[in-house]
Amino acid sequence: MTEAVTVLGLGPMGYALAAAFAQAGHPTTTWNRTTTRPTPHGTTRAASVAEAVAASPLTVVCLIDYDATRAVLAQAEDKLKGRHLVVLTSGSPESARELAAWAADHGITYTDGAIMTPTESIGTDAATILHSGHEVDLAALGGTQRFLGEDPGRAAGYDVALLDLFWTSVAGVIHSFAMARAENITPAELAPFANGIGTLIPWVVDEIAGRLETDQHGDGSSNISSAAAGMAHIIETAAAHEIDASVLRAVHALATRAIDAGHGADDVSRLTRELERTSGS
Amino acid sequence: MTEAVTVLGLGPMGYALAAAFAQAGHPTTTWNRTTTRPTPHGTTRAASVAEAVAASPLTVVCLIDYDATRAVLAQAEDKLKGRHLVVLTSGSPESARELAAWAADHGITYTDGAIMTPTESIGTDAATILHSGHEVDLAALGGTQRFLGEDPGRAAGYDVALLDLFWTSVAGVIHSFAMARAENITPAELAPFANGIGTLIPWVVDEIAGRLETDQHGDGSSNISSAAAGMAHIIETAAAHEIDASVLRAVHALATRAIDAGHGADDVSRLTRELERTSGS
Ligand SMILES: NC(=O)c1ccc[n+]([C@@H]2O[C@H](COP(=O)([O-])OP(=O)(O)OC[C@H]3O[C@@H](n4cnc5c(N)ncnc54)[C@H](OP(=O)(O)O)[C@@H]3O)[C@@H](O)[C@H]2O)c1
Ligand SMILES: NC(=O)c1ccc[n+]([C@@H]2O[C@H](COP(=O)([O-])OP(=O)(O)OC[C@H]3O[C@@H](n4cnc5c(N)ncnc54)[C@H](OP(=O)(O)O)[C@@H]3O)[C@@H](O)[C@H]2O)c1
Repeated sequence: MTEAVTVLGLGPMGYALAAAFAQAGHPTTTWNRTTTRPTPHGTTRAASVAEAVAASPLTVVCLIDYDATRAVLAQAEDKLKGRHLVVLTSGSPESARELAAWAADHGITYTDGAIMTPTESIGTDAATILHSGHEVDLAALGGTQRFLGEDPGRAAGYDVALLDLFWTSVAGVIHSFAMARAENITPAELAPFANGIGTLIPWVVDEIAGRLETDQHGDGSSNISSAAAGMAHIIETAAAHEIDASVLRAVHALATRAIDAGHGADDVSRLTRELERTSGS
Repeated sequence: MTEAVTVLGLGPMGYALAAAFAQAGHPTTTWNRTTTRPTPHGTTRAASVAEAVAASPLTVVCLIDYDATRAVLAQAEDKLKGRHLVVLTSGSPESARELAAWAADHGITYTDGAIMTPTESIGTDAATILHSGHEVDLAALGGTQRFLGEDPGRAAGYDVALLDLFWTSVAGVIHSFAMARAENITPAELAPFANGIGTLIPWVVDEIAGRLETDQHGDGSSNISSAAAGMAHIIETAAAHEIDASVLRAVHALATRAIDAGHGADDVSRLTRELERTSGS
């Protein structure tokens, strides 16, 4: 028999989660602060957080951040006691551990999760969701569900690192279209080649991971000095077109710092060590 | 019959190019400023730029930047006259157009190209090389060879936009490993998920390209305010671990600027317009 589930939050992601639970046959109750947001077909909308939580043994929360998450959960502290709470809001490991401690204090079973894929992926094979703390079955959400252990901050640790990569890459996509347009290359013309760059990322990830595992940064096919020279002419082109290049300037400054520290001939993997060096100084 | 080719520059990429030409049966002559760099098996090393250029109707140049390229070509100005010059050094569209003008003044047929894939790809199906100016057959280098028209700066225009995306994404990879390590997640543990993020890039590219083509940025499944909230907690986590977050801070500042301009509910595609707005103000 399929357990009842409550979903708090009907933003794009909360909506997708509630729809997937309902689709998989879970009796699904939803709640959202702003009542004008639609609830998915086949779900029951509750009038308050307390009423929503009371409807199911399992409550899934997906809101904009942990401040909102804490504020909403405070409205049903008593009702949550003895139930299972799964927070899929993105946040820092620290926030996840704090909320886990709060849950423990209130007799609530706690799972902290991180959704790694877009709303469209939920309920399909393309979904990837990580979780830690208390292990939970999220098969209804589809795709890859990975339990990372009992530290409730561990899923958020992966999330923070991966979202960092995601948003930085998205910033690259955004900027590359601006650069192309300044040279009369349309987004549609650039897109297939930009996708080609995406296919290089696994190559880069595996190369850098391997070098970091052994802490060997020499003899690379792509050294920091050559990378910095490449960035310099991109920044120069952006400046010529009066396009903001603050993101790439920050990358270039990091490369320059590594070159000044005598690492110009090293592979770009050295830059991870350079970022970590901040914490030492 | 296979035409003789000269390659100037034996850095990692020049070496790969010379090896691929020789492998494809082109009599191949090489030159490099520093004579201790090895030349690939089956190629002939020339003692000077002039001697190298004189050996073939086609000269391919692949050096660190256009300053080096101009300095090296100046050593064989007379010999280049009536021959075909293909510059595969990465540079700005402006540099490419300037060098094309110089070539025209000296009676040299000019092609400017951009290599979009790593050294290991050269001579294999994975290679992608764009070129513009004078059309040339680079089949020996393998993979996808694309002619983009007679404007000698066009290949460099694509190159600049795509390298911008590449280096920004690499900066994301570098930073994500530093963040993960601070949470005791090893590079090897993170790598498979980081590769998963790479597979999202084509999704993002196509979504943003479509929105830019129609200039419609509303009703997104991923809005700027939500993205900014995500970035804020990553920056907070980096700060807690004393890891430099200057790159993501620059991305966050851009998102904040767009929110302040009233675009918080728009899709992140709006940020390309925000970057372009700099040029208007
Ligand atoms: N969208 C994606 O593709 C995606 C992918 C992976 C992870 N995520 C994560 O999923 C979470 C939710 O994202 P989302 O895309 O659904 O949209 P979102 O814009 O991040 O969050 C919207 C939700 O937060 C609620 N909210 C905001 N402030 C609130 C407050 N002070 N009190 C109560 N509720 C508040 C909104 O309620 P109102 O309707 O009342 O404003 C709405 O339910 C985020 O942590 C996001 O990082 C999203
Ligand atoms: N490596 C890749 O994966 C890759 C991928 C795509 C595109 N590219 C592009 O290919 C080009 C070459 O890159 P690379 O990887 O081979 O290495 P690189 O480090 O960018 O360039 C090294 C080459 O430049 C020469 N050089 C540097 N300064 C010089 C000067 N002042 N005068 C004469 N020669 C000079 C070096 O000669 P010495 O030996 O005398 O120093 C060597 O031949 C760059 O524009 C790069 O962006 C490379």
